[in-house]
Order: sequence, then C-alpha cells, then structure tokens
Amino acid sequence: MTQSVAVVVVAAALIQDASGRTLLSQRRPGDSFPLHWEFPGGKLLPGETPEAALIRELKEELDITLLDPEPWYFVSHPYETFHLLMVIYRCTRFDGDPKAIEVHRFAWFDRKALSGLLFPPADLPILKHLGIEDPTPTPGGDL
Amino acid sequence: MTQSVAVVVVAAALIQDASGRTLLSQRRPGDSFPLHWEFPGGKLLPGETPEAALIRELKEELDITLLDPEPWYFVSHPYETFHLLMVIYRCTRFDGDPKAIEVHRFAWFDRKALSGLLFPPADLPILKHLGIEDPTPTPGGDL
Repeated sequence: MTQSVAVVVVAAALIQDASGRTLLSQRRPGDSFPLHWEFPGGKLLPGETPEAALIRELKEELDITLLDPEPWYFVSHPYETFHLLMVIYRCTRFDGDPKAIEVHRFAWFDRKALSGLLFPPADLPILKHLGIEDPTPTPGGDL
Repeated sequence: MTQSVAVVVVAAALIQDASGRTLLSQRRPGDSFPLHWEFPGGKLLPGETPEAALIRELKEELDITLLDPEPWYFVSHPYETFHLLMVIYRCTRFDGDPKAIEVHRFAWFDRKALSGLLFPPADLPILKHLGIEDPTPTPGGDL
C-alpha cells in the first residue's frame, strides 16, 4: 500500500553573478530551520505557474525582479508531514538591489564558502548538483 | 493581473542504456499528439510523490520497474488549457522487459535518431538539455 502525502510544489532560484558567487537568503530566527541559509523562493499559490511564483517570491523576499529564470534542476524530498517538490531555476540577471524584506538577511557566497553553511536538508542535493560534495550536515529536525 | 491556470505535475523518465540509447514510447493514434514520441511517464495522482507516480506509470505503460530514478531536469510549459510542470528522472536500471501496454509502441533510439522524431512541444526542452539542438519542429496543435 502506498502512503498518501501532500505534495508541496516550491520554486527556488539559483542566482549567480558573473564571478560565480551565489545569492542566498537566511531564514528568520522564528522559522523552521532557524537561521539556515537557503536558495530563495517559495510555494506556488493556487493557479500560479512556477515562474510566476518564483518572480513573486523573489520580489517579496528580496525586492528584486528576476529577468532570465531558466529550468536547471529539481529536488524531491520527503519531510515528516509533507513531500517537497522544489523546482530550481538558474538566474544570472535581475532588476533592483537586494534587500532583506521577508528574510533575516541575504548574502553572496563564493563556491568555497557555500560548503561551510547550514542548509535545510532539501537544499543539500542542490549543493551536490553544483559539485559541492561535502556540505555541512544539517542537524536533526524537520520543517 | 496574473492569469490563473491549472498546474499539472507530471513525472517522466529519461531511460538510457549503457550504450547511450534512450527508451521512448509512442502515443496512441487516438491520443492528443497522436503517434508523437515522448519520454514515458504521467501525472501524479492526489497524494502521490513524484517517484511513486513515475514508478507506477512506467509499470502501467511499459511493464517495467525502475530501480534508480534520479532527479535530472524539469520542464515548465504553457499549454492552452493548463500549465505543465514535468519533472524528469534519469534512469539506467530497471527490472522487466518493456512491453507496449498503455502506449502504441516503444523503441530504443540512439542519439542521432532522436533528432528525427516528432515530439510534443513540452518534450523539446529535454532534447535541448541533452545537447540535441535541432529536433524536428512540432507541427501546430495543442494537448
């Protein structure tokens, strides 16, 4: 018998600048996975395409408008109370200067720095797909 | 104002053998996109994870059991009446001998042959991601 589970679809962004640095946002202290870094994005609202959700979330969270999101990779991850399907778009251009609106803070990280950060478990396959083989293990806990 | 659209989530398989050939299925004459070739798979049922849907669909369509599906790429494609979000898993091992159960037929194609086939438009980004830059254009029509 197959267990029934709610599948939550999320669109996230791998934003990289010309020097290969990656823009990440940090979750707020009161969030699940407090102060963990993550690839910014969020859930699709009902009737919303992944691209529309991505652009809306990045505007809400960081006050930027993505210009060229392109499908790149996806993650399918079982959390305890739901199943996360995260589609990740690679972006290299956006309008606006990032501001921490709905996130604790944001920062650009070079490749080497990425491996020293704390991420929610669903983000770890993204790092692996980037060729970062040994990211910091996430301490126990669920979203 | 953003238009509201039904997002349909589909899981599909890029099945490749050791010599790099790809297993495709052909849509039935009465289907939308009749006799078009496609990467096999299908819609997630309510409460079903992408992996469970993929394994169920490949069993139903081709009577094979995928052993190692790994996230590979995704496609987000607007059709006229819905928006398709297709997550594609790369698979190199399966149990069983393929049979055309719920498809018109199936076949293994080498890289060169892939570019001469007719595909639904949502499958074309998959070919491009495989490095096949000039697949046959799909004639007009919608799913």
